[in-house]
Amino acid sequence: MSASRAAYIGGVNSTSNVLAGKVYGIPLKGTHAHSWIMSFPSEPEAFDAFAEVMPNNCVFLVDTYNTIDGVKNAIKAGEKLKARGHKMLGIRLDSGDLSAFSIEARKLMDAAGLKDADIVASNDLDEYAIEKLKAQGSKINVWGVGTRLVTAHDQPALGGVYKVSALKENGAWVYKIKFSDDAIKVSNPGVLQVRRTKTEDVIYNIEDHELGPEGEDLLVPIFRQGKPVYREPDIKASRESAQSDLKKLDEKYRKISKATENYPVRLEKKLDELKTSLIRKASGKPQGQPAS
Amino acid sequence: MSASRAAYIGGVNSTSNVLAGKVYGIPLKGTHAHSWIMSFPSEPEAFDAFAEVMPNNCVFLVDTYNTIDGVKNAIKAGEKLKARGHKMLGIRLDSGDLSAFSIEARKLMDAAGLKDADIVASNDLDEYAIEKLKAQGSKINVWGVGTRLVTAHDQPALGGVYKVSALKENGAWVYKIKFSDDAIKVSNPGVLQVRRTKTEDVIYNIEDHELGPEGEDLLVPIFRQGKPVYREPDIKASRESAQSDLKKLDEKYRKISKATENYPVRLEKKLDELKTSLIRKASGKPQGQPAS
Repeated sequence: MSASRAAYIGGVNSTSNVLAGKVYGIPLKGTHAHSWIMSFPSEPEAFDAFAEVMPNNCVFLVDTYNTIDGVKNAIKAGEKLKARGHKMLGIRLDSGDLSAFSIEARKLMDAAGLKDADIVASNDLDEYAIEKLKAQGSKINVWGVGTRLVTAHDQPALGGVYKVSALKENGAWVYKIKFSDDAIKVSNPGVLQVRRTKTEDVIYNIEDHELGPEGEDLLVPIFRQGKPVYREPDIKASRESAQSDLKKLDEKYRKISKATENYPVRLEKKLDELKTSLIRKASGKPQGQPAS
Repeated sequence: MSASRAAYIGGVNSTSNVLAGKVYGIPLKGTHAHSWIMSFPSEPEAFDAFAEVMPNNCVFLVDTYNTIDGVKNAIKAGEKLKARGHKMLGIRLDSGDLSAFSIEARKLMDAAGLKDADIVASNDLDEYAIEKLKAQGSKINVWGVGTRLVTAHDQPALGGVYKVSALKENGAWVYKIKFSDDAIKVSNPGVLQVRRTKTEDVIYNIEDHELGPEGEDLLVPIFRQGKPVYREPDIKASRESAQSDLKKLDEKYRKISKATENYPVRLEKKLDELKTSLIRKASGKPQGQPAS
């Protein structure tokens, strides 16, 4: 459920998760299973039976037995649908050489006058597989992504940690810094905010900085004095906001290659000075003395 | 919540997830956060304050500033606890060279008469990191595993798929097989069951096989005719069953190395014959004709 919601906000068009469709209002799309085909004596009978009950939602899964034969059977079912005043939405490829099959299927469907029918592909797709299939000139125009999207396959955990960066004592802020013997993990002190400008994100201390007013502050309060003060936007507003943010990113940061350029995130000058001074102060301290 | 439950069944001793402790009755264990230490003027004051409110649950996190200084501060807090009739449970290492720190900490704690105190380690641990730390002669005796356990870091998705293997038609079973153009993914036909013997698991067709009665059938019905017929055992029974199963496994299958030997799972003779004959039958068929 949370993956369907996040994927929709992130840009996918629809979900096959019926409950997510109902609860969040995400458009529903899907096909039948291989088991549907296998529970009929033959593939053509299975397609016809599906077309009978779902005449306006026919994306035929064509790889249960032999993919190209499956495409031909789907075309026949599509022609029957047309004769009944409906339209086959497309076919789905779920195994084998997706690129070669899509090119062959496109030719066959175009020749049969089914130029509008989609070619959906699935099978452990992720952004790298999709990029490769596109580079191969595949004729896939709908991408069914599941496993590797929902599980964040290449980064299954987001290693967020909570560190104290400032405490108010007797009305004044005391800045806190945490480091470890690894020396690589040093937290940022201060009452922190992130300012997004046209070209970079700047982390700064709202109590002491030299930033002008330009840009947008990204952190918003969720709780104040123990009371919730944030109202979650509706899913469509979240989706629009995410899509509009993505469009603002320069194309060099949006490349899918692993060697892509990183969007710059830096510390504001006075925060950088504060951090450096607290590190210096701590390294001269006796055991177990914090830097603030 | 589901990860805490699964981990407890799988063999962990306790959880730091307080809600899982409450709902499932899993023993609770945990330490304080770095932010606890950082919200006091010094580490010794933070330890003493924690000992004041949690005198019987003191596992001190020692790496907020300098780990060995942290160990020494924990020992002082432990001695104060002892004088008050309580006992420091241990220390926790969460960064740096866990092996070297644990050896040094063990020496310092033993010299101070805290031989019973545990050394807990955490920091993105998984089975491989733990095996390595053990091989290095580390003195860690409690392993705090979180991120890489909960997210199944090296295999974030279990690629299970649903295939039809048999359908009853007019009172007789019709066996179904699914293959794809990849040729590597071929499903098993039959009314399937798995028999676990002392040395192997055997997948067989309960309608036609040559197995004797020895061994245990692993699949149990969950639904019959649309009605739930299974009663979930309680978490302690599940845990005992999982632990007892693990103990039955020969040690060669329990090695943590990636090059470990696989436990044998095979098809029973008559099922193997059925599958082969259905594959042969299908390869001689015209388009879109199933193998059964």
